[in-house]
Amino acid sequence: MSKLVECVPNFSEGRRPEVIEAIAEAVRQVANVKLLDVKADPSHNRVVVTFVGEPQAVKQAAFNCCKKAAELIDMEKHHGEHPRIGATDVIPFIPVKNVSMEECVQLADELAQEIATKLNIPVYLYEEAAKIPGRKALPDIRKGQYEGLKTEISKPERRPDYGPAQLHPTAGATVVGARQFLIAYNINLDTSDVNIAKKIANSIREAKGGYKYVRAMGISVRLGDRDIAQVTINMVNYQGTPLFRVFETVKSEAARYGVNVLGSEIIGLTPMQALLNAAEFYLRLDGFDRKQVLEDNL
Amino acid sequence: MSKLVECVPNFSEGRRPEVIEAIAEAVRQVANVKLLDVKADPSHNRVVVTFVGEPQAVKQAAFNCCKKAAELIDMEKHHGEHPRIGATDVIPFIPVKNVSMEECVQLADELAQEIATKLNIPVYLYEEAAKIPGRKALPDIRKGQYEGLKTEISKPERRPDYGPAQLHPTAGATVVGARQFLIAYNINLDTSDVNIAKKIANSIREAKGGYKYVRAMGISVRLGDRDIAQVTINMVNYQGTPLFRVFETVKSEAARYGVNVLGSEIIGLTPMQALLNAAEFYLRLDGFDRKQVLEDNL
Repeated sequence: MSKLVECVPNFSEGRRPEVIEAIAEAVRQVANVKLLDVKADPSHNRVVVTFVGEPQAVKQAAFNCCKKAAELIDMEKHHGEHPRIGATDVIPFIPVKNVSMEECVQLADELAQEIATKLNIPVYLYEEAAKIPGRKALPDIRKGQYEGLKTEISKPERRPDYGPAQLHPTAGATVVGARQFLIAYNINLDTSDVNIAKKIANSIREAKGGYKYVRAMGISVRLGDRDIAQVTINMVNYQGTPLFRVFETVKSEAARYGVNVLGSEIIGLTPMQALLNAAEFYLRLDGFDRKQVLEDNL
Repeated sequence: MSKLVECVPNFSEGRRPEVIEAIAEAVRQVANVKLLDVKADPSHNRVVVTFVGEPQAVKQAAFNCCKKAAELIDMEKHHGEHPRIGATDVIPFIPVKNVSMEECVQLADELAQEIATKLNIPVYLYEEAAKIPGRKALPDIRKGQYEGLKTEISKPERRPDYGPAQLHPTAGATVVGARQFLIAYNINLDTSDVNIAKKIANSIREAKGGYKYVRAMGISVRLGDRDIAQVTINMVNYQGTPLFRVFETVKSEAARYGVNVLGSEIIGLTPMQALLNAAEFYLRLDGFDRKQVLEDNL
């Protein structure tokens, strides 16, 4: 079966349509890569591009759009609400099918070297691809942003993993890495009391002793003609902490407050496996093999 | 998104490997069709071939292997335990993805005419493609088998839907139709009492007032080092009667006998949608769209 990697690079341009289009076109030009989404945010002045394909083709597309961004974006003139350090701010590789995290780390490492060597841009490795412990989290690498990093980059502790110890004059620096697919998952409660959603969020989030791969908050949202409390969740590793386990815990915690779970929503994309895991759990499927899925034989 | 139809023709040859291979090769020769399985049964003297692909390509492959079987199989010399009326005994089309049952019925009708016209073989339409009410069920069409149909076929009520009112001298007659994907699904009980499995099977099968699209029996099977009772099920329309509903009913009926459900098994292939339906049900997913599945965007 074919290997599938997703790549979701973020670029520091959310306003000039011709620049956004040129970056998207750099992805489309590569065979065996499919551009899934281009989401520009003018107030952040940032665009998030999503594409998938064979590992080497995806790496090529990532390099091409990084090169295009370096040509067209000048960080000296960039302003926006979102923290950033370069024209191509961050490039994560995400395993989707028949690809291990190790392969994505390897891919990130190769791309980082290529960007450093060919484009003369300093590159930091983050998340699963991080070589230095303090560089796992993106905010730590972005500290001081483009403007601050100009002088900080020469300090030993801020030196990039690859490339020169000084920012590219227009493209700044770039972060490359590998991470799990992130599923945006919301669970709606049959109450308007947002405090209950906050308490439940605390019961499942890692920071409060909950599940390792769960980030969660309790908020109030409009559903039809009424306000309801919602547990809004980022599932940062759906294989490590599966959706069904989080859903069952939220149901159980909600019951403790006499509240029912109305339903749940997946926002945006999800890998098939996240839903197969739920079907396997609830149907108590024994010895089920992904190869039994008809569509996976094609 | 591309259309996907499955075809599972049955041929009256399960012993001569060179004939089986020639039939399989007739499928492989067609572009945009993928041969998934070739299962020969020597005692039945019958082979079941499974392939999928674009509707028109699948129809072409079905015609080609029917033609090949007519060349290589002589029903005058055929003996086997399984009821049959022709060299190509039956050809069902099954909607898998982005294809309606109506399209499969249309495909069956086109193929039936083509076989009748080009190969001079009488063809009956069955199941969803049946034009005559008494021809929905395969056993009704097969009554008397090849040998009996020789004389019966000239009677008005046995006349084929297409083609001559007499059997092809070596290839006999063929049945073509459209049906839903059949999922073989077993649920294992934490008891050795097969009577409990039989009672539960009766609670879910259509014939005893259960679910419309469920065929079920209670049997005893070996699991590891012990015998357990199993409800063995044919889900003949997983969209009409979903797996999760049958599973939940079996759980509830088992509880009535103080018995736990050990687990369930899917035997062979299943369309992805059957498992997505379960995930949607149990996670109470609101507004979920198949397009949110990452792999379906490729």
